[in-house]
Amino acid sequence: MPRVVVDVMLKPEILDPQGQAVAAALPRLGFDGIVRVRQGKRFELTVDGEVTDDRIAEVRRAAETLLANPVIEDFTVRVEP
Amino acid sequence: MPRVVVDVMLKPEILDPQGQAVAAALPRLGFDGIVRVRQGKRFELTVDGEVTDDRIAEVRRAAETLLANPVIEDFTVRVEP
Repeated sequence: MPRVVVDVMLKPEILDPQGQAVAAALPRLGFDGIVRVRQGKRFELTVDGEVTDDRIAEVRRAAETLLANPVIEDFTVRVEP
Repeated sequence: MPRVVVDVMLKPEILDPQGQAVAAALPRLGFDGIVRVRQGKRFELTVDGEVTDDRIAEVRRAAETLLANPVIEDFTVRVEP
């Protein structure tokens, strides 16, 4: 069945303590080449039937309502092959 | 600066209560076309300098060590343009 992926990330201007904690831990573990980390959420949605434009619009409304907090988060919706 | 994305998802055989909670909430909010939801994590890593094969290998080791729990999670590493 077709799958739609919604990626939710904090807006760039919002502080991301989880990402900062990961970024601080990496050098301690010997990984030196990574300068910045942002952590977000990924949702894989399995939709019923074909992925039509209407269905994508529904997923977008669901993302705005439930999956993301549009005040502090940005999200992207895409169909995965 | 170049960005590497690490997507971390629970393995398919592992129960995902967060995803189930989202899937159960969607119909209550009027979204009926989504039959299954899996929730995972997305990390955006900014790397220092060029994204070489060595750098990707380092990110992969970091993902195995810190970003994902390979016992219950799968991850993918990809370079974002």
